Amino acid sequence: MSDITVVGGGIIGLSIAWRLVRRGADVTVLDGGDEGAWHVAAGMLAPGGESEHEDPALIALLERSAQLWPAYVRELGVDVGYDDTGTLGLALTADDLAQRARLWTRQQLPLLRPSELRELEPALSPRVRAGVLAPRETQVDPRKVVHALRERLGTRIVVKRVESLADVDSRQVVVAAGCGTAALTGLPIRPVKGQVLRLRGEPGLLRHVLDGCEVYIVPRADGEVVVGATQEERADRLVTAGGVHELLRAALELVPGLAEFELAETTVGHRPGTPDNAPLLGRLDDRVIVAAGHFRNGILLAPVTADLVAGLVLDGLDTPGDFAPRRFS
Amino acid sequence: MSDITVVGGGIIGLSIAWRLVRRGADVTVLDGGDEGAWHVAAGMLAPGGESEHEDPALIALLERSAQLWPAYVRELGVDVGYDDTGTLGLALTADDLAQRARLWTRQQLPLLRPSELRELEPALSPRVRAGVLAPRETQVDPRKVVHALRERLGTRIVVKRVESLADVDSRQVVVAAGCGTAALTGLPIRPVKGQVLRLRGEPGLLRHVLDGCEVYIVPRADGEVVVGATQEERADRLVTAGGVHELLRAALELVPGLAEFELAETTVGHRPGTPDNAPLLGRLDDRVIVAAGHFRNGILLAPVTADLVAGLVLDGLDTPGDFAPRRFS
Repeated sequence: MSDITVVGGGIIGLSIAWRLVRRGADVTVLDGGDEGAWHVAAGMLAPGGESEHEDPALIALLERSAQLWPAYVRELGVDVGYDDTGTLGLALTADDLAQRARLWTRQQLPLLRPSELRELEPALSPRVRAGVLAPRETQVDPRKVVHALRERLGTRIVVKRVESLADVDSRQVVVAAGCGTAALTGLPIRPVKGQVLRLRGEPGLLRHVLDGCEVYIVPRADGEVVVGATQEERADRLVTAGGVHELLRAALELVPGLAEFELAETTVGHRPGTPDNAPLLGRLDDRVIVAAGHFRNGILLAPVTADLVAGLVLDGLDTPGDFAPRRFS
Repeated sequence: MSDITVVGGGIIGLSIAWRLVRRGADVTVLDGGDEGAWHVAAGMLAPGGESEHEDPALIALLERSAQLWPAYVRELGVDVGYDDTGTLGLALTADDLAQRARLWTRQQLPLLRPSELRELEPALSPRVRAGVLAPRETQVDPRKVVHALRERLGTRIVVKRVESLADVDSRQVVVAAGCGTAALTGLPIRPVKGQVLRLRGEPGLLRHVLDGCEVYIVPRADGEVVVGATQEERADRLVTAGGVHELLRAALELVPGLAEFELAETTVGHRPGTPDNAPLLGRLDDRVIVAAGHFRNGILLAPVTADLVAGLVLDGLDTPGDFAPRRFS
């Protein structure tokens, strides 16, 4: 067995393993073989948070990781779909606007008129009432990131489902198993179901990530457009008529021209939620470290999580107390 | 080579071949291997026609074939999903009602109040304004019918794409190639694209076929619910965001409880349309017979088409002049 075993081969586990390997450690990744939340995730890197209610410590962590992403992309050294065109935050109705106004004010983003928005993104519906340009909210393609990490880690990744941490024979064990972390550690992580669509059409209809109140729309350079996501406190894997309908309705309301796009993929993933929806990062005991519960922010938080866990394992540095895994006990 | 070759292994070609075989003929079916319109079709057997504008000769043919279906099902001798619970014709809006009123009057179907409709079908939306019960509009599962016909015909079906009728070395050739008939014969058959969804959930939510103005909903005994169909003058095979959205919107408007059903399948088929949207049935020359262009009625018309073609080939009986293949020349 290796000196360090990472349990979980999703974007968090692979990012940690790769950071450890780059720093000279002897690492094995055990992966159950199922595709994780990264396979479904759109890859919005939105450090501003999702609402005005977000915890300041989490906002600071998101910011820190967002700043790490450009260097992380260079380090990966291949195209992972990183795109810094920016995000348009959009409000269709007066209610949307009221809901978003405080967030946008906190982010110090000036309100744009519909004509200004359509100058930036001509395919937007004339019904869009107001919005902002968030130039620091970028995107990456999580599938490409995981593919790149898998290539770099190669045979260090072993397909094996871990049923108990007692079966893992390593000096240090990092549990980065997303929703599966609950069964391995007893920590309070719950699956929050998300249905996500992938449309496909002529590239160039959209340039920015669009963040509406009911839906986000993430256009890739190759014509793929990710539409997400439902948020359901359920563990099943069903793509439902109601879920797909809501996503399509909201997406076509913002961008009518997407109607002609192919509905290429319908998928379901589960965000690993925690009681405060901030991650669990830190030591459980002398042998076991946990890095899980990233909820909606797993892609954005991958680089900072990798650095924090590497600092803990290799340098004995503390991880931030705000994310202590046992803070709910 | 066989005495008679049927070009096309969809529901029309297989039904003809089986009727010929049962009557003692020596038959081969050549099938290109693609799944035909039957694979997408919901299997509503609705002899009343789709509107008040339908041609009387076509209505008579639909009626005649509907009467043949129960015996045809018995002859097949296996479960093909034949269900005679009946169809509810439904109107959600005053416009729907105005559009449907003349058809329902012609069919002599008494108008039912919303409360009467929901007694028959409790899952119906309270927004449904009026409707009728059409007890003679039944359903069958086209996939099961084709499966049964394939089993019966066995090695008489040969997978081979016919590019030219000159390559078919038989005394008699029956062209039943759906949209492919145009290229083989020069007859005016055009593809009319239809997108169709299959939902899946607990059996028993619905009992009747539901025929709304914008959508039909066909519940099967096993919990499958077919939702169709777009009608687009296009030949592509794309499942589109707009098509799926329209079908789900209209279906959930009629039956809100379908929101929880799995979106199990999204498919595209092409109805073989003709200039008057009635089929092309009859002789082209001493050797070639055509049975194609059944548009939206291919499933319903399979038994009568089989009987008519068998009568023509084996008994020298004329087919109805209203459906003469060269009537547009």
